[in-house]
Amino acid sequence: MCESAQVNVAVIGLGLIGGSLLQALEAAGHEVTGYDADPATRDLAGKDGRKVAGSVAEAVAGAELVALAVPLPVLPGVVAELAGHDGLITDVTSVKGPVRALGIRRFVGGHPMAGKETSGYSAADPRLFDGCAWVLCLEPGETALEDWLTAAALFTAMGARVVPVTADEHDRAVAQISHVPHLLAAALARLLVDNPLAATLGAGSFRDGTRVAATRAELIAAMCGGNATATGEVLTAVLDDLRQRLDELSAPDPVEALIPALREAGDARRAWPPRPGAAAEEPAGVAELLALGRAGGWITGVSESRVTVLTMRPETDRIAP
Amino acid sequence: MCESAQVNVAVIGLGLIGGSLLQALEAAGHEVTGYDADPATRDLAGKDGRKVAGSVAEAVAGAELVALAVPLPVLPGVVAELAGHDGLITDVTSVKGPVRALGIRRFVGGHPMAGKETSGYSAADPRLFDGCAWVLCLEPGETALEDWLTAAALFTAMGARVVPVTADEHDRAVAQISHVPHLLAAALARLLVDNPLAATLGAGSFRDGTRVAATRAELIAAMCGGNATATGEVLTAVLDDLRQRLDELSAPDPVEALIPALREAGDARRAWPPRPGAAAEEPAGVAELLALGRAGGWITGVSESRVTVLTMRPETDRIAP
Repeated sequence: MCESAQVNVAVIGLGLIGGSLLQALEAAGHEVTGYDADPATRDLAGKDGRKVAGSVAEAVAGAELVALAVPLPVLPGVVAELAGHDGLITDVTSVKGPVRALGIRRFVGGHPMAGKETSGYSAADPRLFDGCAWVLCLEPGETALEDWLTAAALFTAMGARVVPVTADEHDRAVAQISHVPHLLAAALARLLVDNPLAATLGAGSFRDGTRVAATRAELIAAMCGGNATATGEVLTAVLDDLRQRLDELSAPDPVEALIPALREAGDARRAWPPRPGAAAEEPAGVAELLALGRAGGWITGVSESRVTVLTMRPETDRIAP
Repeated sequence: MCESAQVNVAVIGLGLIGGSLLQALEAAGHEVTGYDADPATRDLAGKDGRKVAGSVAEAVAGAELVALAVPLPVLPGVVAELAGHDGLITDVTSVKGPVRALGIRRFVGGHPMAGKETSGYSAADPRLFDGCAWVLCLEPGETALEDWLTAAALFTAMGARVVPVTADEHDRAVAQISHVPHLLAAALARLLVDNPLAATLGAGSFRDGTRVAATRAELIAAMCGGNATATGEVLTAVLDDLRQRLDELSAPDPVEALIPALREAGDARRAWPPRPGAAAEEPAGVAELLALGRAGGWITGVSESRVTVLTMRPETDRIAP
């Protein structure tokens, strides 16, 4: 395993994620040029000592990797500006199916599972991705493995845990761990409407169960609506599961009836977050990488020869008593 | 408003809540005798300098107030032992309808909304109830107002915010702010079963949305199953609400379709927790007290004459922009 060689990178969009990426790549010794559609943001990054271009075309000229860190709705417009570009392209948007559908040439879709309560370039932090899971999409017969490994080498060198999955697998997983949880939090928060007694009695379980409902409605709607198919499928499954709890509540002995499912939930929650197991070195093949991702594993580095990757899987014997 | 006069109290059950209550009442200058069915717990409390009786009968002899701090399943047995007792009786169990149904004489049902991750007498803390909401049930035509005010004076003097509601109102509110949130957390946690990829990608929204699913299954089942009717009704309402989100996800523009409900949820969550408004003094009548509770208000003290109570309501203009 080794440091990745110096790469010429363009980062388009300098908000929290793009700004942090620009700073992290620079800190790792790469040559990075940033661009943002907002002149004030360009100004801010420039005054921060970053190399900032005046247009997308100028930013990507000569770039071996272009990282698109713009919101999903403006992504197609930026992609159109890259029509003539022949370098590798990645992105950081939180849904991968719709981006894949844009058919970008030499594309490796990405999604760093990092965030903060704050946003904008002024909140950027070069250490934001330290230890974070960074999904990199690998579509059999579509993604060039060589390109995937280039992006993976770059992000693992920044301290990210790179998770290889298909766009479909990603979109379903984020519906499970983020989009549907936001909808459930909103449903609980809506119980407070015209209900001051409940608001006064609410304590810890209500606080945590509804925290993310305070996120801006437009952001939650964009996440869930942008991933509507997977979110709808997962929400359907959750509704089916909750309907079983409803049946159990009308059982002759509801307490006994509820226990098995709650026990399964408790075991799963106590085993989370997964604890890393031992490091290993494995072949850098598409099938092997996708199997690693499905097993909850990730890669921590790419060998210089690119024939193997350094991998890690979660411990599997973690269910607490 | 005044300190409540010294009262002779018996606390039956010396776990976290009962032990804390014993200590808090002693600290407030009352004469308190404790009892626990477990000899080791009695021993622990005795060594801690508390007055501990060897039986329920011994503990309640001469007590003006008996506080039952035992789990719901053993409550009927303890109540049977109190058959000849003519003092005021209260409890601390988290459902109030089933306790009310026991038909206890001179009963004022209570539920302090306080807790900790730990349990047992060794976790007891005389400051546990400082500022916590303490539901005291007031049933028109059933609860003696005089008894209710005695209990309220005692608990407000310990720093609790006493919330007057009926058992039905309480059970519905706790289903909304605790029992159903536990079931939703469990449904989300169950998505991890045989799904290591989701476990690896889970972050903040998953962590908070599932936290209480790690509670012991027996405890969640006892809470929800012990309050099965209200929990079932609230869960049904939440499922109906979530089915509307599901419909919105299949709308031509799911992002736009989702926004109104998410905005309502966000407004409600940002206005929580309610901030206390100005203190007031109001008549201590049953109808007035119940109206106060329904408005999200609470009492902070009882006048010496017991004709008025010191009240507080949440600020109502709190919706953040």
